[in-house]
Amino acid sequence: MPLKKIGNQTIKLLNPPSIISHYSIVGPKEGDGPLKDYFDLILEDDLWGEESFEKAERKIQEQAVRAAVDGAQLSLQDIDFLLAGDLLNQIVASGYAARELAIPFFGLYGACSTMTESLSLGAMLVEGGFADRVVCATSSHFSSAERQFRFPLEYGAQRSFSAQWTVTGAGATVLSSYGSGPYITYITPGRIIDPGITDAANMGASMAPAAIDTLVNHFQDTGFQPSDYDLIISGDLGIVGKSIVIDLMKEKGYDISKNYTDCGVEIFNPNTQDTHAGGSGCGCSAVVFNGYILKEMKKGRFKRVLFMATGALHSTTINQQGESIPSIAHAVTIDINNEQVM
Amino acid sequence: MPLKKIGNQTIKLLNPPSIISHYSIVGPKEGDGPLKDYFDLILEDDLWGEESFEKAERKIQEQAVRAAVDGAQLSLQDIDFLLAGDLLNQIVASGYAARELAIPFFGLYGACSTMTESLSLGAMLVEGGFADRVVCATSSHFSSAERQFRFPLEYGAQRSFSAQWTVTGAGATVLSSYGSGPYITYITPGRIIDPGITDAANMGASMAPAAIDTLVNHFQDTGFQPSDYDLIISGDLGIVGKSIVIDLMKEKGYDISKNYTDCGVEIFNPNTQDTHAGGSGCGCSAVVFNGYILKEMKKGRFKRVLFMATGALHSTTINQQGESIPSIAHAVTIDINNEQVM
Repeated sequence: MPLKKIGNQTIKLLNPPSIISHYSIVGPKEGDGPLKDYFDLILEDDLWGEESFEKAERKIQEQAVRAAVDGAQLSLQDIDFLLAGDLLNQIVASGYAARELAIPFFGLYGACSTMTESLSLGAMLVEGGFADRVVCATSSHFSSAERQFRFPLEYGAQRSFSAQWTVTGAGATVLSSYGSGPYITYITPGRIIDPGITDAANMGASMAPAAIDTLVNHFQDTGFQPSDYDLIISGDLGIVGKSIVIDLMKEKGYDISKNYTDCGVEIFNPNTQDTHAGGSGCGCSAVVFNGYILKEMKKGRFKRVLFMATGALHSTTINQQGESIPSIAHAVTIDINNEQVM
Repeated sequence: MPLKKIGNQTIKLLNPPSIISHYSIVGPKEGDGPLKDYFDLILEDDLWGEESFEKAERKIQEQAVRAAVDGAQLSLQDIDFLLAGDLLNQIVASGYAARELAIPFFGLYGACSTMTESLSLGAMLVEGGFADRVVCATSSHFSSAERQFRFPLEYGAQRSFSAQWTVTGAGATVLSSYGSGPYITYITPGRIIDPGITDAANMGASMAPAAIDTLVNHFQDTGFQPSDYDLIISGDLGIVGKSIVIDLMKEKGYDISKNYTDCGVEIFNPNTQDTHAGGSGCGCSAVVFNGYILKEMKKGRFKRVLFMATGALHSTTINQQGESIPSIAHAVTIDINNEQVM
């Protein structure tokens, strides 16, 4: 077994990469929600001057990367790799953004787990000495996702109560071998778990078992307890998935009820914003991480966070063939200090 | 700049990972082609007992991974990470294969560049000490790709002469920090290049400039000449793209006419197999690499190969919106000996 792997599936980063810059852009609805003060840019119009939702999503992701790189006082030429993906077929928001940015590009598909998939791979590339600086990015757009995965908005289809609302937004994080933190110190990449759910309007329940599998592996591999974290936050399980995770983790001997929440629960106000089970989409965990979590870490409220984006890797084609929804969750530990706890 | 990066965008692997096992599965048409003796398994029927082309593709990829792991005399539990992707929306062939294999999974989308995207990331994860053993895999299926990207086969649409034929097949490669070669010694990840072509039936011309950009960067970064390689082979530029690459590389001062070919050119016989400009799809470079190239390396015919899969990262949605086709090419150097040349 290699030195950097501990336990079953966790990586301990001996020279933890630093998050040297981060940026978040959201649409108008997200900018009306409880986290509005944390986002760097709130769009007034979710087409942002583009002629299609897909092109708008590309622009949002591209601008998030440009602003994150600017924030690090770097130019695009200083970036070794861009690791990005999104929900659209053929990850075109990321591909077309990467075309404009001209950075060597690794395209990822992890559905809504993409933010931590990119942080995991990006952190290993930096720590391993393959790159000095990488950008990890992802995006989603309510209107591009709805028409691709569900119904064209013009149909006015009624949404079920377990359905989540795809976030319009993008987040970008610059990792570097130099910097003063926050640091990525542990990575627990996930396995695919499929509880057999075929209802694409119930993603929270589909993804919860993958989240639990990764959490349990993370605690077993590292020896940490939930109380070692100031915050444990999943990607977009929403209200339905969050309660499943709390209940089933308790059955497995881990009480996370005090310090666990979910990005999809935090981003909207369920009483006033009509978002049913909460937010979802790659952009959900991306903007909550690059907005809320990192800014609260820098203010000193959270010193140690376990951030775990979650993804449902089905397609409409295979769903129509009767297959259930396979899900995954990748977890990363973010530490404000560069001291390896164990 | 980090120690392992040389020049603009090339990684030199100081402790090159070894390819300890590889496996290829192809459909009946590929099994009738010029490379038929190199493939490990030729299917008699491209549904392979499944009820849909997508489910057949999943099974082909899953079995390629299982057989590659078996070939290394390992079990699935010995594999640290699976890095895989495919052409289908939401990379469902890979996602559902990963569900059955239960290996921690990084989903990739690089279109037909996926084989070298996975080898690049996989090699860095092994060399960096994050994993002892990874599997890199990809697949494509003629029938699942045609109905997703072009026309349902039932339409009987006529194909243009610049069109390529999506390969039915999957390849899997096991990389390890231990082993006696062949080794991955250099990696040149690509940038996205878009020459403005909007015709999805002319992928070779769309991808050729990305291939040229990566080749030129590779030669400049490493100081190698084309003659330092026994074989330079691109992924699936086909007959149209291959001739563009030879011509434009000559203009840039590199004569690759003697030792360069393309997987899409080699896999079919254009005179008898009616494949027009040649083969394409993630599976094309995957089976040519894991079948033909690696077996000829082990026989001693090729000692040093530059293998560069190429991908077109458009979607039908964005193509219908008038956007052109953005392309990418990732190159890896495969050395039979573990001696760093420079």
